[in-house]
Amino acid sequence: MTTVFISGLGLIGSSLARIMQQIDTDTTVLGADPNDDTSQFLLAQGVIDARTTFAEGSAKADVIILAGPVSVITKQLAALADLPLKPNVVVTDVGSTKRQVMAAAKPLQKKGIAFMGGHPMAGSHETGGRAGRVNLFDGAVYFLVDGSQRLEQRQLFQRLLAPAQLRWVTIEAEQHNQLVSQISHVPHVLAATLINTAVAELKNDPVGLKAAAGGFKSTTRIAASDPTMWTAIMLSNTEAITSQLDDYIATLTKIKTAIAAGDEPQIHDFFEQAQRTRQQLDRTTEEG
Amino acid sequence: MTTVFISGLGLIGSSLARIMQQIDTDTTVLGADPNDDTSQFLLAQGVIDARTTFAEGSAKADVIILAGPVSVITKQLAALADLPLKPNVVVTDVGSTKRQVMAAAKPLQKKGIAFMGGHPMAGSHETGGRAGRVNLFDGAVYFLVDGSQRLEQRQLFQRLLAPAQLRWVTIEAEQHNQLVSQISHVPHVLAATLINTAVAELKNDPVGLKAAAGGFKSTTRIAASDPTMWTAIMLSNTEAITSQLDDYIATLTKIKTAIAAGDEPQIHDFFEQAQRTRQQLDRTTEEG
Repeated sequence: MTTVFISGLGLIGSSLARIMQQIDTDTTVLGADPNDDTSQFLLAQGVIDARTTFAEGSAKADVIILAGPVSVITKQLAALADLPLKPNVVVTDVGSTKRQVMAAAKPLQKKGIAFMGGHPMAGSHETGGRAGRVNLFDGAVYFLVDGSQRLEQRQLFQRLLAPAQLRWVTIEAEQHNQLVSQISHVPHVLAATLINTAVAELKNDPVGLKAAAGGFKSTTRIAASDPTMWTAIMLSNTEAITSQLDDYIATLTKIKTAIAAGDEPQIHDFFEQAQRTRQQLDRTTEEG
Repeated sequence: MTTVFISGLGLIGSSLARIMQQIDTDTTVLGADPNDDTSQFLLAQGVIDARTTFAEGSAKADVIILAGPVSVITKQLAALADLPLKPNVVVTDVGSTKRQVMAAAKPLQKKGIAFMGGHPMAGSHETGGRAGRVNLFDGAVYFLVDGSQRLEQRQLFQRLLAPAQLRWVTIEAEQHNQLVSQISHVPHVLAATLINTAVAELKNDPVGLKAAAGGFKSTTRIAASDPTMWTAIMLSNTEAITSQLDDYIATLTKIKTAIAAGDEPQIHDFFEQAQRTRQQLDRTTEEG
């Protein structure tokens, strides 16, 4: 009998709960979220077995999952250090950046509580607990950052999520932040910039955005994500994001210059490299 | 009995042929393409009724569709001015940029042959005649630029493509080029830049691109398109593309500075505007 407490029943937290309800072994999922409507919905659907306060859920749990934004996670890690917890509990999080989270978990670990950083890589522009689904992470990479967890605690957590067939990757916090900046945070800034620039130029155009076809819509889909969550990400992974944006602007300026000059071989090389790499990416991620 | 001749049986040309084979009225579709393998395949599948040379297909046709890249279309427009054609034939094209095409059609029009510019807005990263499909354009915008066509010639062309339920938009060549630059050409450059920058930074990373989740893959999907076609587009719509890239770089530099400074309100406004606009775009294009 394992009791799991999930704090934050948004897209990620509620999807983790849905997955854990699939496993055969006896598991109770407690949930806490400030949103009454979502909490009632998830309780009625059996996604969570009971709704609790943060303190009550934490006290009863063998596994605590902090599934709010990074700014909330760091506050909750501080709070947990002063709450009564089961001695063998393992605390983990799902925050999109890991350096701040790992630092914020230090006081908790000093009290002898096991902590392990986590971050499931699921891309979705949807938000909220109603949008969660049991297959949100199917086959996705789930990053783990070693804290003070024991092997059997990590294995327990992985068994709870076995139905999602995740690809577990253990990584250092710094490397994690560089990597997710490149494949998630920077692309998000670029998509938001594109949609904001396009609108400034097209808003007085009667045909305007109506004509936007598949390419434009897929390139900008992630720009529909929750602005509060993304602002928190920008503030917690600033260095990696701004440094990579500098590189991006430099590369973009170079190809813009080549286009302006009509430099056919350089333009062709550029698109050819992109095509080759993008096709490689499809093969790499499909092979799993 | 209408005879249609399509020159260029790639993704676009072969999809147009597939649509025209759906209509009830008696239509013969002739096709020409340098690729033997694709041509034989399309003939065997009944997508085209016969394979011809460019001169033979042009001579027999009531409707001529130039469906190669812009660089080929402009050469073929020059060639058509010196070939024997039916007096009532209407010539059209599917080129992604329209100013050069409309200029290249002038000699043909001076000989009394009707020309009408065209551009179906279908986003796909696939290429080639085998990838064509009857639903590639379903509900998409099809731009028409008035040349010298008569009303009944335009209506004939639109009837031939009726199964695709296209949204026909008549537009000036200059406005067309600005618009497609914004919603198609610039996004393509951005996606290619992202994939090229990411690879430069991640190539020595064992986890690397393997971890790329939905967001990164959808943002960069269009970068897998044909480099030769995209190079031709850059060279034929240079002014609009480079001017919009300048605006994009300016906006991106501004938000990068805000992120570096940790300016929370400005970052939040930026993402909120992007979210609102992107959601509007989904509503606008779905209502279509």
